Order: sequence, then C-alpha cells, then structure tokens
Amino acid sequence: MNNDINNKDIVKINEIDKAQSNCAVVGIYGHPHAALMTYYMLHSLQHRGQEATGITTFYKKDDTTWYYASHRRNGLVMDTFSNPALFTDKLVGTMAIGHNRYATTGSAIDSNISPLNMRYKSGILALSHNGNLSNTHTLRSQLENEGAIFHTTTDSELFLHLTARSKKTSQIEQIREALTYTKGAYSLAILTQEGLVACRDPHGVRPLSIGKVKVDGHYAYCVASETCAFDMIDAEEIRTVKHNEMIVINDNTLVTGEILSYKIEPETPIAKHCIFEYIYFSRPDSRIFGHNVDKVRRKLGKNLAEEFPTELANTDPEKQKVRVISVPDSGNTAALGYARANQKENKIETAYEIGLIRSHYVGRTFIQSGQDNREFKVKSKFNTVKGVIDGWDIVVVDDSIVRGTTSKALIKLIKNAKPNQLHLRITSPPIKFPCHYGMDFPSKKELIANDYDNEKEIGDALGVDSLHYLSKEKLLEAVSHEEGIDYCTACFTGEYPIELESELES
Amino acid sequence: MNNDINNKDIVKINEIDKAQSNCAVVGIYGHPHAALMTYYMLHSLQHRGQEATGITTFYKKDDTTWYYASHRRNGLVMDTFSNPALFTDKLVGTMAIGHNRYATTGSAIDSNISPLNMRYKSGILALSHNGNLSNTHTLRSQLENEGAIFHTTTDSELFLHLTARSKKTSQIEQIREALTYTKGAYSLAILTQEGLVACRDPHGVRPLSIGKVKVDGHYAYCVASETCAFDMIDAEEIRTVKHNEMIVINDNTLVTGEILSYKIEPETPIAKHCIFEYIYFSRPDSRIFGHNVDKVRRKLGKNLAEEFPTELANTDPEKQKVRVISVPDSGNTAALGYARANQKENKIETAYEIGLIRSHYVGRTFIQSGQDNREFKVKSKFNTVKGVIDGWDIVVVDDSIVRGTTSKALIKLIKNAKPNQLHLRITSPPIKFPCHYGMDFPSKKELIANDYDNEKEIGDALGVDSLHYLSKEKLLEAVSHEEGIDYCTACFTGEYPIELESELES
Amino acid sequence: MNNDINNKDIVKINEIDKAQSNCAVVGIYGHPHAALMTYYMLHSLQHRGQEATGITTFYKKDDTTWYYASHRRNGLVMDTFSNPALFTDKLVGTMAIGHNRYATTGSAIDSNISPLNMRYKSGILALSHNGNLSNTHTLRSQLENEGAIFHTTTDSELFLHLTARSKKTSQIEQIREALTYTKGAYSLAILTQEGLVACRDPHGVRPLSIGKVKVDGHYAYCVASETCAFDMIDAEEIRTVKHNEMIVINDNTLVTGEILSYKIEPETPIAKHCIFEYIYFSRPDSRIFGHNVDKVRRKLGKNLAEEFPTELANTDPEKQKVRVISVPDSGNTAALGYARANQKENKIETAYEIGLIRSHYVGRTFIQSGQDNREFKVKSKFNTVKGVIDGWDIVVVDDSIVRGTTSKALIKLIKNAKPNQLHLRITSPPIKFPCHYGMDFPSKKELIANDYDNEKEIGDALGVDSLHYLSKEKLLEAVSHEEGIDYCTACFTGEYPIELESELES
Amino acid sequence: MNNDINNKDIVKINEIDKAQSNCAVVGIYGHPHAALMTYYMLHSLQHRGQEATGITTFYKKDDTTWYYASHRRNGLVMDTFSNPALFTDKLVGTMAIGHNRYATTGSAIDSNISPLNMRYKSGILALSHNGNLSNTHTLRSQLENEGAIFHTTTDSELFLHLTARSKKTSQIEQIREALTYTKGAYSLAILTQEGLVACRDPHGVRPLSIGKVKVDGHYAYCVASETCAFDMIDAEEIRTVKHNEMIVINDNTLVTGEILSYKIEPETPIAKHCIFEYIYFSRPDSRIFGHNVDKVRRKLGKNLAEEFPTELANTDPEKQKVRVISVPDSGNTAALGYARANQKENKIETAYEIGLIRSHYVGRTFIQSGQDNREFKVKSKFNTVKGVIDGWDIVVVDDSIVRGTTSKALIKLIKNAKPNQLHLRITSPPIKFPCHYGMDFPSKKELIANDYDNEKEIGDALGVDSLHYLSKEKLLEAVSHEEGIDYCTACFTGEYPIELESELES
Repeated sequence: MNNDINNKDIVKINEIDKAQSNCAVVGIYGHPHAALMTYYMLHSLQHRGQEATGITTFYKKDDTTWYYASHRRNGLVMDTFSNPALFTDKLVGTMAIGHNRYATTGSAIDSNISPLNMRYKSGILALSHNGNLSNTHTLRSQLENEGAIFHTTTDSELFLHLTARSKKTSQIEQIREALTYTKGAYSLAILTQEGLVACRDPHGVRPLSIGKVKVDGHYAYCVASETCAFDMIDAEEIRTVKHNEMIVINDNTLVTGEILSYKIEPETPIAKHCIFEYIYFSRPDSRIFGHNVDKVRRKLGKNLAEEFPTELANTDPEKQKVRVISVPDSGNTAALGYARANQKENKIETAYEIGLIRSHYVGRTFIQSGQDNREFKVKSKFNTVKGVIDGWDIVVVDDSIVRGTTSKALIKLIKNAKPNQLHLRITSPPIKFPCHYGMDFPSKKELIANDYDNEKEIGDALGVDSLHYLSKEKLLEAVSHEEGIDYCTACFTGEYPIELESELES
Repeated sequence: MNNDINNKDIVKINEIDKAQSNCAVVGIYGHPHAALMTYYMLHSLQHRGQEATGITTFYKKDDTTWYYASHRRNGLVMDTFSNPALFTDKLVGTMAIGHNRYATTGSAIDSNISPLNMRYKSGILALSHNGNLSNTHTLRSQLENEGAIFHTTTDSELFLHLTARSKKTSQIEQIREALTYTKGAYSLAILTQEGLVACRDPHGVRPLSIGKVKVDGHYAYCVASETCAFDMIDAEEIRTVKHNEMIVINDNTLVTGEILSYKIEPETPIAKHCIFEYIYFSRPDSRIFGHNVDKVRRKLGKNLAEEFPTELANTDPEKQKVRVISVPDSGNTAALGYARANQKENKIETAYEIGLIRSHYVGRTFIQSGQDNREFKVKSKFNTVKGVIDGWDIVVVDDSIVRGTTSKALIKLIKNAKPNQLHLRITSPPIKFPCHYGMDFPSKKELIANDYDNEKEIGDALGVDSLHYLSKEKLLEAVSHEEGIDYCTACFTGEYPIELESELES
Repeated sequence: MNNDINNKDIVKINEIDKAQSNCAVVGIYGHPHAALMTYYMLHSLQHRGQEATGITTFYKKDDTTWYYASHRRNGLVMDTFSNPALFTDKLVGTMAIGHNRYATTGSAIDSNISPLNMRYKSGILALSHNGNLSNTHTLRSQLENEGAIFHTTTDSELFLHLTARSKKTSQIEQIREALTYTKGAYSLAILTQEGLVACRDPHGVRPLSIGKVKVDGHYAYCVASETCAFDMIDAEEIRTVKHNEMIVINDNTLVTGEILSYKIEPETPIAKHCIFEYIYFSRPDSRIFGHNVDKVRRKLGKNLAEEFPTELANTDPEKQKVRVISVPDSGNTAALGYARANQKENKIETAYEIGLIRSHYVGRTFIQSGQDNREFKVKSKFNTVKGVIDGWDIVVVDDSIVRGTTSKALIKLIKNAKPNQLHLRITSPPIKFPCHYGMDFPSKKELIANDYDNEKEIGDALGVDSLHYLSKEKLLEAVSHEEGIDYCTACFTGEYPIELESELES
Repeated sequence: MNNDINNKDIVKINEIDKAQSNCAVVGIYGHPHAALMTYYMLHSLQHRGQEATGITTFYKKDDTTWYYASHRRNGLVMDTFSNPALFTDKLVGTMAIGHNRYATTGSAIDSNISPLNMRYKSGILALSHNGNLSNTHTLRSQLENEGAIFHTTTDSELFLHLTARSKKTSQIEQIREALTYTKGAYSLAILTQEGLVACRDPHGVRPLSIGKVKVDGHYAYCVASETCAFDMIDAEEIRTVKHNEMIVINDNTLVTGEILSYKIEPETPIAKHCIFEYIYFSRPDSRIFGHNVDKVRRKLGKNLAEEFPTELANTDPEKQKVRVISVPDSGNTAALGYARANQKENKIETAYEIGLIRSHYVGRTFIQSGQDNREFKVKSKFNTVKGVIDGWDIVVVDDSIVRGTTSKALIKLIKNAKPNQLHLRITSPPIKFPCHYGMDFPSKKELIANDYDNEKEIGDALGVDSLHYLSKEKLLEAVSHEEGIDYCTACFTGEYPIELESELES
C-alpha cells in the first residue's frame, strides 16, 4: 500500500507509549547459526507479538573489532525474515537476541522496533524487553534534563541511557547499576561484548527460561519467554531465570556450563507471577514459571465446572446431552477440562464437541468496510459447524472477556446456528483494572466488567442464557504454590504489587 | 526479496501445466459491493488455494460501454487485497468473480493467475476454473494449428479460445458451444455481459453451490465452491449447481429469482463426486454436494474405530486409558468420532485429548536451512503437549498419507514426547494413483503406498506400533447415496471415470 | 506509491491505442552477452521512449528445446534493469531484442509493454515495433471475427496474430506473409528460432540500422533505431535496413557475414523518411537514414539565419552584440549554426552563449501542486544564467513548437532575466497536422500553429519581439537527396504519403 | 532489488564517517506550503547530493503542542517525494528544512539521512548540515564518556548532543552555546520552536544565502546553499549569511522583516570561502558567496587561454581551425571563455563546438559487467559527435582532474573519433590534497597529481598531446577580492586554514 504515509507519521513532542505490551524476548549464545535459531524461536513465540519483530547479532572479528547487524521490521516473523540471505550475509555471528512486539495503541514509529541497539563508549549493546516500567516518566525527565536524547517512545530505551551513563567500565556492571534505578516489570535479554545477559525484575512478573541445545559437540545456551521456543530448536529447558535474578552466559559457560548469577536487589521480594500468562497469553504447549500451561488450563476448566456446572435443558429426547465447545484455540484445553468435570464430577451428560472452526489465514490486515466491522472480523476468524450446534444445549468455554465486543459478535455468530440454549463459561474472574506491567488491556471504562453490576447483567448484554466467571479463589487453586512465589492478580482486584507513578494511577 | 527473478522466469516452449490443482471459484451478481463480497468469499476459501488469488469485476456504463477491472497477484487473499482503495477505486461494478490458485509444481508465470480475462469480438469475458481438463493437449494443438496464441500454460485458457471462436453471437451460446469440446473436471464461474454463468462438468467432479444474500431490499446471487463462503457474507445456500448443468444469473434473476439452467451434454451421466473433498480438502463447516462435511468426517472416524479399534496396552495403572489425538485441524472431527466409537462401540476406555498444537502463523515462506527441512517445517507448524502424551497409549487420527514425509516427521515429533504406544489411524484408504481431475497428488512412484506391500510395512516405515487405513467400503458407507450420484475414488483404485488423453495415462 | 491502483486500471472494451508513438527498437544476434548489449543499446536510446522498456532473449538448449525469458517494466532502462542478476540468471541466450516505449496518451496496461512475446504452433517469437500501422482497425476487426483474442491494445500485436495464422511452416515465411497485410510505418526487430529478423516498411518512415561488433574472435550482428546505440557497445554501422527491406541474421551470417535480404512489396515505392527525426527526435551524435544528425541540424541553423537574420537593437554600447542561446540540449547544434551564419553570412556581430541551464535530474514524476504546473515543470528543467541575458539582445533557437505551452513558460522564464530584446527562431516549419506514423503530436486543434493566422501572431502570443519558422524549402535543402529517397513532411503540410483508415482521417 | 541487505548493513563499532561530503541545505519559514517549497529547492540543488534526501517540518497546534514530521530516504529528490500526499497529509506546517546528502565512501546507514531530528527536554529540533567538523573525534569521545548515545555515524549529530546538554532554556541560546565547541566547516539550517536558525562557521567555508518570497500578501523567508534554489520558487536573494554569523527568522521577521543576527565567535576571522565551489561544485546559474558562478567560470576559461593558448597544428587546409569542446555541462562556460580568449587575445583561429553529448538519463545504478567498467560508465554518460572531431585539432576544457580515471576513459572515447591533435586544459591547479571541510576527494595517494612529477607526465599518462592546468595565481585572479574575504585552496596547496585533529592529519 502506501508505504510513505501512515497515521503514525506525525509525532507529537514528549509522547511516551502509555500502553506498551507483553512481548516475546529470546536470545542465544555460542551457536554457529545464532540468527537462524533466534528466528525459529521468535516464530514459535509469534503469539506474544505480531506487530513487529527484530533480530540483532554481534560478530567479533578480533578482541578490539566487533560488528553488529540488526534487522527489524513491522510484520510477522516469517514475512520479515523471508529472505534467506539475511542469515548468511547479514545477521552473522554466534550470539543473537530477538524480540516480537505486540500491537499496541501507542506509537508505532519505526525506531521503536526492538531489539534496541546502541553504540556507546564501551562498544555495542543490544536489548530486548518484555514488560513495562512503572517509573518511566520520572526516569525520562531526569535523563532528559541531563541532556539525553531519546530516539524512541518506549520505556525500554531507559535501560540504554542508564547503562551508557554508568561510570563502571564493565558492561555487565553498567547494566547492574542501571537496574538499580528501574522499577516495574521487565524480562530482558541483552547482548554485550561480555556475553548474553538475561534477567527478570525483582517480582518476576513476566516469564523467562534458560535452555541449552547441543551443536557441533558442545552446548549453546538460550533464553526465551516460553519453553515452546526451545522445542522448536530441540533445546532443553535448564531452569527459569529467577525473579530478582540477572544471569550471564559467556565463553566460559560454553566450556564449563557455569551460568553466572547476580541479585538485582539485595533483598529478594516475594515473586508476583502474572497469572494471566496461564489463563490466556502463553501457549498451552509451553512451560512458564517452571510449570505446564496446559495442565493449569485443564484445571481451570475443571474448577469452573465444579463452581458453575451446566445442567441439561433440552426437551428434544434426541438431543439430551450438554455440548461443550471451545473458542479455538486458546479455550480448547479448558473446554475439555470443563466437559470432563461437568460429566464426571457433576454427573451431567456432557460431550466435548468442535463447534467453532478457526481460520488459519487471519492476519491483521483484514479489510472492513461499510458493514459492522467487528462482526466481519469475527467471521473472518471463526465459523460455526451448524450440525454441532443446531438444537443442542451449548456451553461455550472462553478464557476471558475484555471489552466484550468480540464476545458479543461471537455469541451472535453462534446463535445464528440456533442452539437450544447457550451458556458462557469464563476461566478467569472479571477483568476490571488495566495492567501496568505489560498486558494490553484498555482503560477501566472500556472494560465491560465495569459497565454492569454483576455477571448476570453482562450475560444478558452478551445475549447468553447464563454467564459465569471463575472465582479468584478457584483460579488461584489451579496454579502452583511454592515458597516465595505469589501471583499478580491486579487486573481482577486492582491491587498492584509494584508501586506506580502518579501518571499511571489516574 | 528479489522480485525480478525467480525460477519460473525462463519459459520453455510448448510447456503446459501437467499438475494443475484444485482451486476455489466464487462469483456474485447484483451486489453493490460485489468485489468486497468476492474478497470475503475468497478469504473463507483460502484453504483451497494459497499460491495466487484474483478478482475481476465488470462495470456497465451504458448498453454499449462496459469496463472491466482485474486485480491478480501471487499471495494470500488478505495480503493481495490489503489496500481498501482497490474496492472503491478499481474493482467497481455489481458483478464479480474470484479465484484462489493452489500451489502447484507447474508453471507459476504471472499470466496464469485467474480469473482469466479476455476482450474479444463480443466484448469482455472473465473466467474462474476449478478442476482439470483431460483433453488439454488435443484441444490446444488443434487451436494452435488454427493460429491461436496462448498466453498462459493453463488448460483454463482453452475455454476462452473455444468461446472466442464460436460463430454464435450470444456469449452464453458461445460458452455452451465451447463446453461441447471440453472433457474432464471443471467447475466454472464466468462473467459475461449477459450475466454470471456457472457450471459443473457432466460428472460434477468438483463442488459448486448457489446462494443468495439480501442487500438493499433485493437478493444478490452468488456461487462458491463451498458454502462456508456463503456464511462469511450472510448468504444462504439455495442449492448446488448440478452435474452437467450450466446456470445463468442475470438482471431478470434479480427481479424474479429465476435462475436459467441448461444441460451441457444431452444425456446426463452418473455423477462422480470427488470423495477426497469430504476426506480432506473441504472445510468441515462447509456443505458440498449438498451435504455437511463435518458429519461425513465424524462418520469416517466412527467407521474407522469399528474397523480398526485400538486396545489398551499400558501397564501403568495411572495411565490405563487410550488417548486419541488428532492432527489439527483437518483431523479434529474424525478423531472425535473415532474416540467416541472406540469407547462406545468397542467398549475400550478412550479419551479425546489435545496433544498437538498447531501454529496460527505458518505460511509458505518458512526458511529452512542447514538442517532437516521437513522436520523444521513440521515443527514450525506443530508442537506436542508433552503432559498429554508422555507415558500414555496414543492413537493419532489423520485423514490421509500421500508421500509420507510429513507423517514421518510428525510421528517423530510425537515420539519425542514419549508415548507408551503410538498408533496411527487414517480415515481413507491408501492413495496409490495420481488425480487427473484437480487434486495435487504426485506421480505413482512418489506415493508411499506404492513403496510397500501392505499397511504393516508402511507403519513400520513410519515408526508406529500399528497403522490402519479405512477400507474403501467403509469410506463409501460414510457418504450419502442418491439416485444418479456416485463417487470418484480413482486415487485409491486407479479407475478413472473420465477418459484420459494418452499423455496422462503414461 | 500506490502500486495497486492507477488510472489505467479500468479497461474499456474495444479500446485501441490511438496515439501510439515513436519508440526505440534494438536487437543483437550471436553475442555471449546479448541481453547486456541490448541493455546498453536501450540506454543510449532512452530519449526515444521513457515510459517503459523491455528485453526478450531466446536460449536454444538443443534443436527441439528452446527457452525464452523476458523482463518488461514501466520506467527507465537503468531502473528497470538495475539488478545484475537479471543478466546472469534470467536473460540468458545469445540473441536478444529490446524496446523502449514512449509516454503516450493511450492505454498503459502492463501487457502493452514490448517486446511482445508469443508461444504458438511454430515455437516462440518476440517482436519490437517502432511506428504506427494505418490499417489497425480493419485488421483487428477481421482477426477478432475469426476468433483471435487480443491481449494488448497496441497495433503491434497484429503482427503476432497474422504470423500465427499463416499456414507457412517457416517462421520467416510466416512473417513475410504477415507483412503483406500490414500498412503504415514500422521498423521491426523480431526474434525467431530461425534468426533475428529486421525490417522497415515499404516507405521506410522510421530509421533502422545494421551494425556488427567483434566478440570472441567473430562478429555479432545488431540492429538499432539510431547508430548512437552502436557507439555504446563499440559496434560499427554496416548500413541501414532499406525501406521495403526485410533482413535476416542467422547462424550462417556469423560464419559468412552474409545477411539475407527480402523485399516486402514486389515494387519498392519512393522512401518517405520522417524529417522530424532530423529536426528533433534523434540524438545529434547518431546517424539515421545513413546521415549524421548533427550535420543536418547545423545546416538547419545556418539556413534559418540566412532566411531570418537577427539584427542588433541594443542601444547600450557595452552590449552591442546579438547573443544566441539554445534551448538545451536539442537546440544546441542548430543554435551554433545560427550564430555562425548570422555573424558570417549576415555580417551581424553574434555570440553563441549559454543562457539556459538544463537540470540533469528531471524525470517524469515531478510534483506540481497549487501553482501553475507548466511553469514549475519548466523551472524544474531549466534555469537562466542571468548575467548572460540581462540587458542583451537575445535570440533563442529551438527546434519546434507543438502546443506552445512549454515555449510560453520558457519565454516567460527568460524574460524574467531581463533581455533587451527577445527573438525566437524555430528550425522547422509550423506543425499543423498530427502524425499518424508514430510521432506523438496532439490533434489539430491542440497545435498552436492552428490557433493563429501567422507567425507574427504566434510570436505575440508567446511574448517575443520576433518569431520566425524555417520554411519547408529551406528545411528540405538541409537534408540529403538521393535516388528513390524522399521525406514525409505531413506534420507541416497534411500530405500523408501512406493511405489512412477513415478512423484516423476524421 | 534486494532491499533487505546491502553492504552497509553490518556496522563496525566506533565507526565515524571519515569522508563526509559537501551537501545541500535549505530551509523556509512562514510559508503555507513550506514542505513543497523545500522540495522544489532541494530539487534545484540535486547536484549537491544525490545519495539521500529529506525534509522535516514543524507544526504548532498551540503554544504547548507541537508536532513534527520527517520524510527521509536514499534516492533522488523527485523519487523520494513522488507521492503528493506527503505534502498534504504528512509534511504539514509552515516551517521546514531539507537536506541532500552526497554519495560518500562512508557509512550509509539509514539513521544518517538528514535532517537529523531530536525530541529532548526543550521540545523538538531538526538540523541540516553542510560541511565537516574538524574536531569530531575529540567532541564525540568527550560526549560518549558523559553517557551520550550516538545514533548516526555523522559529525552532524554532535550539534544535537551539544545543544541538548546546554543548561540554557532557550533553544537559540542552546545552539549558540553548542557552536562554541564545534570547529571546522559548517553551514546549518536548524528548525526550532523559536524559529528557523541558519549559520555559517567562523571561516564561512561553505555558502549559504538568505532569500524571501511573497506569498498571501506577506514575505516568507528562506535559506539555501545556492541561489538557484531561490529561482525555483520565485524567491529573491536578500544577502548571504555571513561567515561567523548565526541568523534567526521567526514570527517577528514575518511582520517586520527583521532578521536577528548573532556572532559565533567574538572576533570574526578572515573568511576562507571554498574556491572549488566556483570551479566545479555549484551550478553556473547560482550566486554563491554573493557572486555569479557563471562569470567566474568564464574568467577561468579566459585566464587559462591566456596562460596556455593552443596553437593550430593541422596540415589539412580544410581543417585549419582550433576546435574547443567542453566536457558538458560543468565545463561549458569555461570552454566558451577559453575559445573566445584563444581567438581574441591570442589571435589563434578558434571555434567553440559541441563535440561531446551528455546523456540525460544517467543515474547511479548503471550496471557494469564483464568489461572495463569505467569505460562503460563514461560511455553511458557521454558520446562523441564524430563529424565535429574527426581530423580536427581539438582542445578539451574540463574543470579538474581528481583520480584521473574518468579523464582517461573520456580521452580514449574522444580519440576514437580521430582528432588530428588532442589538447587538454584544466581550469584549476592540480588537486594534491584531500579536503577536510566537505569536498569528497580521496586520499593523497589516490590523486593522480601525486603520481607524476609534472603536468607533462600526467598528460602522457592520459594520452593527450598537451595538458595544462590553470595556475593558482590565475585562479585567484578570477574570483572577487573583498575586505576580510579570502579563499581556501588547501586541496591545491595543503595549507588548511582551520586546525585539524591529529586523526585527520595523518
């Protein structure tokens, strides 16, 4: 189309991204095809960010001569890196990091695409960031007053300036110093001339795991937001980066297997893992925070059935069975869990069925015109299997409701296939508060749960025969509980575990 | 990348596509947003062809002044038509046809992209074709000897030349005359200045349905290879185009609802519907040949369980349940059918589970390099849910095996997740013969079923504990049987219902 | 910009280019870098056509296996062929033809870009055409009635259909037969499997020369519209293709140097060389029709000075010298001729000066907005050297005036530099009639010479102190006169030497 | 071609452009079509830089809300700004600056394309720079040690960091402070929220002029490297920015016409205007440093004829006249001056002739392959008019010889046209030293004048019958001499008027 102009082209002064989002970060060290492995990992984490993607590699010619190369574009991983020559001619080197950027409402200027790279007094450094800082405005003002020039509208750039200003001579020490200033949620992968650095903020809000993959007789080491990235390159998970931990993988690691580990804050606080990563964001075939996502989701479905079973209402003797369908693919496992538990625990005859088909070809460029856009968008993504729904009692299991617009369109679509009754079950509590640590939720007033007094009213608005959300208690029951580990449930409760700047609170 | 050069750029003389393929055809008449509706329908039929896509519209200024516009490109529907101005400024008019082209091994020169358009003595005509002619070489030689210049390497262009050479003055009569010469499989949507023409060959090998959609107080009429295209634009199915039938929708149809119908051959032969459309090619939420695809697939799974049940082998008392997983998404319904029947009919404890996750972001541009390509391709598309598979008796239900290479890689992937036993069940008989009517199968010697004596040997080659194909009898039992309707099963039996040229037989 | 849509996208039925134009044709045979040489020749003939360009090569694998490759695009030669891989990987073979297309008011659909290529019963054939047929409508109707499908809106495609319909078996004989039907102006370069064919119509309106270039110890043979193309590749001119002559260069030519020659019509008419090629269209460093363009232009300037000298009018004793400036670069040589003759023959003190600077960077995409477009276009192309003009008596020498709009803007620009007097001298008679043989002149009513009674009135309209055109007699005196050779001066006189269809006469 | 990869993609750490080059800077304030006027000015200054171009505009919504927009690309002005919507939808605002970047041997990473824009504590600022700083490494190291992150490899970015670090609150005062640190050659146009700032370094090496243009009843004010930019938009020159002067144009200027003026250094040194701007770089229709370029060049030709006349050597009585030809277009005026003086002052019969034709279509993408590239490059740009040269005594007048490779190829080309004798005259002294103030000359050892002992030897190497360079004395005689104004002739003498860093001296 028109590549020269888009609505992001005119930049307002002092604009900072208010609603940055959850992303994917990956990195690898000591692999002869570092960029290609990074590409594979980014592809497997495409669900964590579809707006933009990028890879940066470092190449060391000799002790004093380093080169870097970076390829960053708006678009999907496969499209951005479709030219094989990128891997042979440009993105050379045995260490690389990558990033997928989620579509946000903020500014999409090109310089925002990660990894962010800098050349500075100590050489080169590249950084991928997942999460959101909560003292962005404070730090930015302070740095600008000292003469810093910001080239992006992201909070991620703060890490660069803080590192560049450190008086330490080691890059790793510079980063450690920088992290003493930043507050909020961040999982980082950083390329330095001293090695691959990875860390999770003191509360460890976002996931990040460490893996290793055998190549040419030794192990290369990698990090990724979710372990499905490791499956893609036949790497095995070693462990997660811990909350409040910064690790370093360097040439010594390749020989000895030893991974350096530093504390960010002297006292490690209780972890506050984002529980929404389990509910919706991560892939079911991943492990995050050290646990299988799939198993948690199955449990969410089971707990939901226990809390809110669906009884048979059909008077047609041919159709006396509750049919549970999921919103593919995020709801599949939970729907299966719900169906089994509704049948087994609640003794209600229940069948898991495939009533919604999801298109494999939906991207973000679908044209809408002249008609109800939301409806067409839903139709371009889903279609019903009429024979499965027509005349039956249907339970739809979905993971969450945010604005409610997509749910509304989806319910309408399903009702066109004429179910006898239509029940909606949600495997999380009502979302009532924005996320300031990376999840792309809108403001309070755009959240449908704040528009109505109770779930009955929301159900009526959506047009279902019944609607039930999983309770916070049953939600927490589904996840692992270990020493020092807790969960951030701020989007349901408004209790933010990390202090916010006043700009964010309003 | 390098748009100037690809391996299709150098054209050999007298080359004709030998392996054209199944495609999508759609058309609409009498709709103020004809091109946009065509775009929506093409999007919903993306699975029928991802290599190229195109739309042609006709615009009548006055009785003697017609314009046409055509937009055709390699690539997906959403990418090709991502510029909204295409619909407002270029593809104007109330009648349109569209086409999705399947990736083939043949020539991909740009002029091959459909719809094919021609300006000729009687004005303008555009044509979309699904299927393959079986007397291509004979007709082409004959026409070339008379001075015809072919601009494509497709058999579809034959329809144009035959129409242009007819001495009839009406475009519809010209087409009717042309169809007396063509043999083989064809479902066509043709735009003429006299109306929208649609037809299916005398044996009706490929599907084509007629629908209508209310707009501005009247009905617009549409045709599409599958009815899921109608769902997308809120159209309702009227009926299928019958085998040996050519229909015409024109201005009179808009007023009276009357659809003109002509016979192609005086005597209508027994229909030979492609049974593989049910097994794999069509979407489960579609109706084709007047029947629900989803229901047929459920029956295929059921019949397969009856023929080849899977017994429990696990000695771990915790895991004594057969787990059925599908290859998503084409195998989903059949797997559900298999699981239910294995449990109910065969009295073997069986659970349908989600053990394979399919990526939403796989296109055709995935880079493979340095490593086993097939394996990476499979990994970029699928990942296992380890907890579902590890230690269990697993039955994988898939629709078919062609070359066997993908199956091999998939089985390897699943075995990495360590099932106790791994059984493979296929909802169709072994494919042993190429299709000459549009399905993109390779030559006999590339089909894995021809490499081994029996399914035991194939199963061993794939590395499963057991492999069973559905029998032809049980396959035919799953589909509808009406007066005058039979099925083409040539890919299983080698019995081709329509005579082939000698070139094809060899 | 917006590559998907332009104003040529919607095609009207039965549209044929009415105003095709003068172009460049080139060809080469027997050269290991045939496409590269063709590219160089096309670059040197860029002035003959800047809208589109293309090259087709043939590659013979063995006696029965031929391939062809073609690269054709809108744009300049250098931009279209900027990818070196085109020459190594795509445009292979030792024979090639090329074409530059002039910007016209007609249809610019992509399929119109030459060379036109066809695969037909006898194999492959590619054709480049310079000129315009005068029986286009008659031939096209006749062929369409016989079932021909036209894929372009050019008259050039007629050659293809006539050739494909010939019952002869030799391609050369087919072309000879085709040429018995075509009337009008055509210089052709045609690639066949039997050799490189070149010809000029019976009146030889457009130029075409034959050259040879040593490579690897033998001679390769080439043809081009102007000999400056030969200079570019170090080829030497052998002779012109004669009017009414068709020549063939084949493998035998490479060995013996013998070029086959055929007559097109049995009786060769008097040649009617386009005199405007000398006046404006060809490059001054070229030979056309066997003569130096530069020498003719010098003579035109001299004759013009003799007919219409410019006397000194300046009263400032410091500035008593007539200053002659040209409109660069087409007027340079004529201006020098005028200045010398005005000084020497007319005994008037006269100095050739550089008063107008031409920008090297003007293409066809200059944006105009809000202001007088024509003026900005002229300003983007020319600027005055104020010190040369201010206060002096200035004579501007230009080659011709068509619509007069550019002249008007140019005169205004020069007057801004404040000459004492400003005189305009034109090295051709007034253009009063359109060209039907290839020159891109507008209709009668758009030609400024038809708006006024005499040159005095035109000069007043342009705002000069005097305006004089060269007389037709003095024009003809400047060109060579040989046995059987005459000139087409129809644009000045309306006497068209080749009969026109009634469509064109109106 | 391959947009993803080029040889500039891999960046070396601590790389700084060593060979930045002369460029074009323009700016305008108070014009409703500021970006469009900037575009026109940039187009007219295309000769000052063809590698990249850019425009930045500021738009003030209200006192506290400013927006900026910037469009910067590699390529020509016309191609980069070919989309008209850029001017209506993106580059809005009444103030704008622009920049053309010359092709250099340094790094062409995208972030280097000017104008450089920054958002910083005081708002927004954009900067275009012509020239080269001579204390780049010193300043850069110092700033990096303080934590500055550089995003380009240009010296121009230093102005941004120095400005951002100033503790002053006014942008103009910040810039003034920044200029106390920078040494070297710089002509700047800077957009601030306080007005358009322009300045020339204390020695005023590069030109910069101020103009005004009437629009909507008032004057808008503009600055440009050469006055031909003003001609393009009908602006008139007011005066030059003086050496050591910084001017400000703001809203008050629009009302009162008053232009603020500041000194950069308290004591203004003698100006050191680049004399090569007169010899070659500027357009002949421009005024620079307050003088007509054309007049200087004419004088250079005259002085050269006086110093080194060419006598007649031809023994053919028909051809007894010296013919002077120029290398178009830079040598045209000087050749005319030479011819006149050789005839008049030296009493040798001499004719100015057009013996070389320059192609209008030469860009930077010409393909060279398999043969002598330099020769083909020259041929693609020039061709001889054989009749003008063959058998005559020819004097070629050119402005300068740098490496000598182009001259060698050109002389060979001319000799192919068989002159009786061939003499070369250069309107400048031998270039023996690199320029550190912006002219793109190579290192000492690549300059042909350093390879030989005297001009006789250089002439022999080039293959001419005689070669003479203008002396430095005669060169300086041709330019204006005013109080406080001198010239930089370092490329001829090695006497650099502004102190260099040690890096540059070696």
